[in-house]
Amino acid sequence: MLNIVKSEHKNNSVARVYLDHAAATPLSKTAREAMQNVETVYGNPSSLHEEGRAAHDVLANSRTLIAKTLNTAPDEIIFTSSGSEADALALHGVAYAYQKLGSHIIVSAVEHKAILKAAEKLEMEGFSVTYLSVDANGRVNPDTLIKAMRDDTILVSIMYANNEIGTIEPIAELAEAIRLYRTTRVVPILHTDACQTPGMLPITPRSLGVDLMTINSAKLYGPKGAALLYVRDGIRLEPIIGGEQEKSFRGGTENIEAIAGFAAALAEAEELRTREVPRLSALRDLLFDEITKAIPKAIINGSLDNRLPNNVHISLPYIEGESVLLLLDAEGIACSTGSACSTFDLTPSHVLRAIGQNPEVMHGGIRMTLGRETTKADIYFAASALARAVDYLMGISSLTVQINKN
Amino acid sequence: MLNIVKSEHKNNSVARVYLDHAAATPLSKTAREAMQNVETVYGNPSSLHEEGRAAHDVLANSRTLIAKTLNTAPDEIIFTSSGSEADALALHGVAYAYQKLGSHIIVSAVEHKAILKAAEKLEMEGFSVTYLSVDANGRVNPDTLIKAMRDDTILVSIMYANNEIGTIEPIAELAEAIRLYRTTRVVPILHTDACQTPGMLPITPRSLGVDLMTINSAKLYGPKGAALLYVRDGIRLEPIIGGEQEKSFRGGTENIEAIAGFAAALAEAEELRTREVPRLSALRDLLFDEITKAIPKAIINGSLDNRLPNNVHISLPYIEGESVLLLLDAEGIACSTGSACSTFDLTPSHVLRAIGQNPEVMHGGIRMTLGRETTKADIYFAASALARAVDYLMGISSLTVQINKN
Repeated sequence: MLNIVKSEHKNNSVARVYLDHAAATPLSKTAREAMQNVETVYGNPSSLHEEGRAAHDVLANSRTLIAKTLNTAPDEIIFTSSGSEADALALHGVAYAYQKLGSHIIVSAVEHKAILKAAEKLEMEGFSVTYLSVDANGRVNPDTLIKAMRDDTILVSIMYANNEIGTIEPIAELAEAIRLYRTTRVVPILHTDACQTPGMLPITPRSLGVDLMTINSAKLYGPKGAALLYVRDGIRLEPIIGGEQEKSFRGGTENIEAIAGFAAALAEAEELRTREVPRLSALRDLLFDEITKAIPKAIINGSLDNRLPNNVHISLPYIEGESVLLLLDAEGIACSTGSACSTFDLTPSHVLRAIGQNPEVMHGGIRMTLGRETTKADIYFAASALARAVDYLMGISSLTVQINKN
Repeated sequence: MLNIVKSEHKNNSVARVYLDHAAATPLSKTAREAMQNVETVYGNPSSLHEEGRAAHDVLANSRTLIAKTLNTAPDEIIFTSSGSEADALALHGVAYAYQKLGSHIIVSAVEHKAILKAAEKLEMEGFSVTYLSVDANGRVNPDTLIKAMRDDTILVSIMYANNEIGTIEPIAELAEAIRLYRTTRVVPILHTDACQTPGMLPITPRSLGVDLMTINSAKLYGPKGAALLYVRDGIRLEPIIGGEQEKSFRGGTENIEAIAGFAAALAEAEELRTREVPRLSALRDLLFDEITKAIPKAIINGSLDNRLPNNVHISLPYIEGESVLLLLDAEGIACSTGSACSTFDLTPSHVLRAIGQNPEVMHGGIRMTLGRETTKADIYFAASALARAVDYLMGISSLTVQINKN
């Protein structure tokens, strides 16, 4: 039956419905072209000769384009190889550069694993870390942050929008709370992991009021292997990879081809934002409607008001997220149970636990994250396929109950 | 006159003579094709669905190909974004994972900046570092290492071949000295930065006897943005970027397109080695001959016996390396004064100081590093252009002396 439905939807083609844009996005044509434009440039950007200067120009032009898109100065952009690296650099970099001013760090309980792992590492190295609780929607209350701040707090890192449940954090309000707290001080410094937000939310760090911000090319239709850390002018960082590149904040020969693609993809994401946000929001709401109609037991996770336009996340009582995912995959739909970066970690999602879900009841969730190529037909197909998968799994489950009873 | 000579050599074309392969190599056709073969694969290798599995397959196949080339197990290969990152991971990773066994680290005085910066950082964090002296050719004497090893030595990092002067270090002998020292111990662990050696020297870590080895795609005709750290089975590492990828040794979504290109380029470099080494060695020796014939004052740096087949490095008394480089660049020749990674560091090269050169006399050197596309005609052209540049600069210099006298 599953195959018939798939054929009906896809007209016998093998086209897939990719609903995992929070994990990775396809490469946009614009980004690919920007990369192809520089594919013959092979010099080391640090070399003084013509080949080196050509590479340096690609790097400088990409940095300028990104600075224009983010309304920053070019030298406030530090290129890294991934969002995880930028996150690790932000936490380690501030912790070590400002340790004379204190050793207390605040992160939220729903941060990406890259932040949580960096925080754990710093704890092992002698720093003290507070993990801020969130409300049932996954939001950090500014009052919670204010209460947690101490004289020795040097860094606060709170994500702009959650990668699992799509909840948008009140970054501007949190930034304001920190601004008021540090009127006569240099710290705490505010970092935000904004990896899920380009093309979805305004991302100019100055208007958000953040000091450091992580953005990842691979989540915004750019190539993998490029990301950035915005570092507000005046903020110091201790590097995790030493070297003279990137203002000595990050050593290593720059991956100029990926950086060129990243810059083009970021500018494109920002250009398309006003068109894509209402379109995606409508598709997201339609998917929620269709799912809750077909599966009344489904529980929506995360805030409905403060939510990424492309994120749908539900929990299904007594149903294993992985089983649903595999059944959907067989029907041609790609989605996930939560963060791709935790696929091989079999413990329940730290985000679902933080919003108060009982892991005994909720065996993981189902996340569908929409993208530029997602259509209304995809939404109807995904909702009906999800309903079929749930029916099928409930059938097995009740059968098991029957067998156990006999 | 400079332009006329250039035209004669290059038959009025604008072709360049690129002699800076130690800084960056062009991308090989094989590597580009391997990248194009996977350019439609955009999934996150950690995702469970078809798109994720396709990405995971690219990653696994690349890892297997590299393991075959290096004669290692696939899970001994940890991908990073650059040689600098792999070096930083090796030093930081071992220092923090083995700190209960000691806090002493040994590196050579001629290491790449990525190693020296990581060592300095560890010193600031409380580790103790010995910088081994080298002989006039830049070689570490195994006896020097033996004398430096202490009960609390946890790590030794000595490069396989020097990136500036091309000297090959006696890694197998150093490994043997360490093996004898640690008969009843786990440490010291031996790391080698082998970035300059693929396609030039045998690079199987088991036959070298090293525990950790850095290799960089961008130096072996592969794409930028990919590198690896070989980590012998059983060696523990504390990550610098947290996450569940790469056995939890290195977090961040893997750059599969670059990794696919890297794997193909490394296999190709190894395939071409037996053909390229004698060809490059002959060209290198020809270049040395031509230079010393034309510029009797030129001083050859580094060992002649234990030298990379593609490295030519000279010092020119009282002549500024940068000026020579810029004159050669204007003639169509790309070369460097030393490491590209230290271009913006105006202090004299730490390598030249370590081999005992007086920075008052030797204002930097000239490095010419040959590659696959280098021809005999390029060598003659480079030598004659270098001689002209030196004549020109000596003219200015003697003129200055004249003016100062009057």
